[in-house]
Amino acid sequence: MSAELSPAEYSPSQAREFFRHNVRPSSGYAHGYAQANLLSIPARDAFDFLLFAQRNPKPCPLLGVLEAGEVTSPLLDGHDIRDCLPSYRVFHHGELHGTYADVHEHWREDLVTFLIGCSFTFESALIDNGIRVAHIDQGCNVPMYRTTRPTTPAGRFCGPLVVSMRPIPAHQVSDAVRITSRYPAVHGAPVHIGDPAALGIDDLSAPDYGDAVKLHDGDVPVFWACGVTPQAVLAASTPEFAITHTPGHMLVTNARDLDYQIP
Amino acid sequence: MSAELSPAEYSPSQAREFFRHNVRPSSGYAHGYAQANLLSIPARDAFDFLLFAQRNPKPCPLLGVLEAGEVTSPLLDGHDIRDCLPSYRVFHHGELHGTYADVHEHWREDLVTFLIGCSFTFESALIDNGIRVAHIDQGCNVPMYRTTRPTTPAGRFCGPLVVSMRPIPAHQVSDAVRITSRYPAVHGAPVHIGDPAALGIDDLSAPDYGDAVKLHDGDVPVFWACGVTPQAVLAASTPEFAITHTPGHMLVTNARDLDYQIP
Repeated sequence: MSAELSPAEYSPSQAREFFRHNVRPSSGYAHGYAQANLLSIPARDAFDFLLFAQRNPKPCPLLGVLEAGEVTSPLLDGHDIRDCLPSYRVFHHGELHGTYADVHEHWREDLVTFLIGCSFTFESALIDNGIRVAHIDQGCNVPMYRTTRPTTPAGRFCGPLVVSMRPIPAHQVSDAVRITSRYPAVHGAPVHIGDPAALGIDDLSAPDYGDAVKLHDGDVPVFWACGVTPQAVLAASTPEFAITHTPGHMLVTNARDLDYQIP
Repeated sequence: MSAELSPAEYSPSQAREFFRHNVRPSSGYAHGYAQANLLSIPARDAFDFLLFAQRNPKPCPLLGVLEAGEVTSPLLDGHDIRDCLPSYRVFHHGELHGTYADVHEHWREDLVTFLIGCSFTFESALIDNGIRVAHIDQGCNVPMYRTTRPTTPAGRFCGPLVVSMRPIPAHQVSDAVRITSRYPAVHGAPVHIGDPAALGIDDLSAPDYGDAVKLHDGDVPVFWACGVTPQAVLAASTPEFAITHTPGHMLVTNARDLDYQIP
């Protein structure tokens, strides 16, 4: 690891190597490369979850799938999926069992691993197009909320849609829609613009995950489908066993953000 | 069924009702509505195929999945998937066992059904934009070819990419790319433009499926990923049992072609 490089300048391999030994949020590492949400579940539940992702592409856009017995993929260029994320969560029957820096001891041969797109990709595009991202400006995690909008069930999996919220000045909302709609593989266009109550969100200052952000006068709350939805679905559907990333502590992949941009 | 309606004017429900009692190609029925390729396979192979489709979205864009035990879906608005296509094929161990007007007698409770997008959707868009489609002008089926390009394997499924070919005048090739790229859910942009030999196609006049079409001077052969790919994959992967549509004899769905257009 070169001491001269800033985190943004790390290659994806350097970032994953760094996270083998360090626990911290992955935002800002390996600029230009896509980061991914992680879900590993036993093979007997894997068809149901793959179908759930197919039916709910906005919260669960799949970037890749590791079959049972596989622990690496071209997206992580030889690294081991069990230790190259900064932090993992292990769930038993939908309940959080613990948080770990690596999951070699918890791994099972029958686990199928889903890599799910992350909104970090389109946040770079928003910033590049002159739209400020509040939680980055305010140095915190994006606020996320469980909604009253259900996902489309598949087999044993069901649960509420989780959304992330970014306040956008009214005159830039249209641009934010246009820009993010070009990234359907990483949540795409917003699912809701304006009134939080219509999603069953009573209080924007009390997010269910992440941190509250300050809205400025004239800001409109804009909601995107969120890759934390699978964690709410785990709680609702209680599969026997699951491993996920810790929110904000993602897999840095070798795929470029631009690979997921459509014209 | 009203005697006054032309096939293009049928509603999707009227078309499916017609095909319950009539065996003929579905091209031209219920204009403006998406048609779909069919694949039904036992649940124990369903994860592998769903993953195959996820890894090969150009030949296998999924419009919907019926879980084991389901025989209808909102895409067919209450009709029974076992009799509302004009014609079906039953495969045993990858080999064609027979062709049938309905498959009630062959159905099994453990079948999972995949509905896969069809290029009829983008052909309408080509024609609407002034690009002629040779096999429609020539009154035959589109020519399709097994290529030497492999699909991305998943579990037990692998096999060659099958492509459809449409000759396009050189000055319109760019438009054809632009127009079809707006329909990623129905095969999207071409996978290859020009030299058939690069795909391992020796003779355009001898397609593996469908009919040969005449090329005019100045036409460029343009190749799109094809929904018949799963049938070549069945032959290569020999699952114990499968039901498909008969090529050209598709499911007429209630989804509008425009539902699959991106900006």
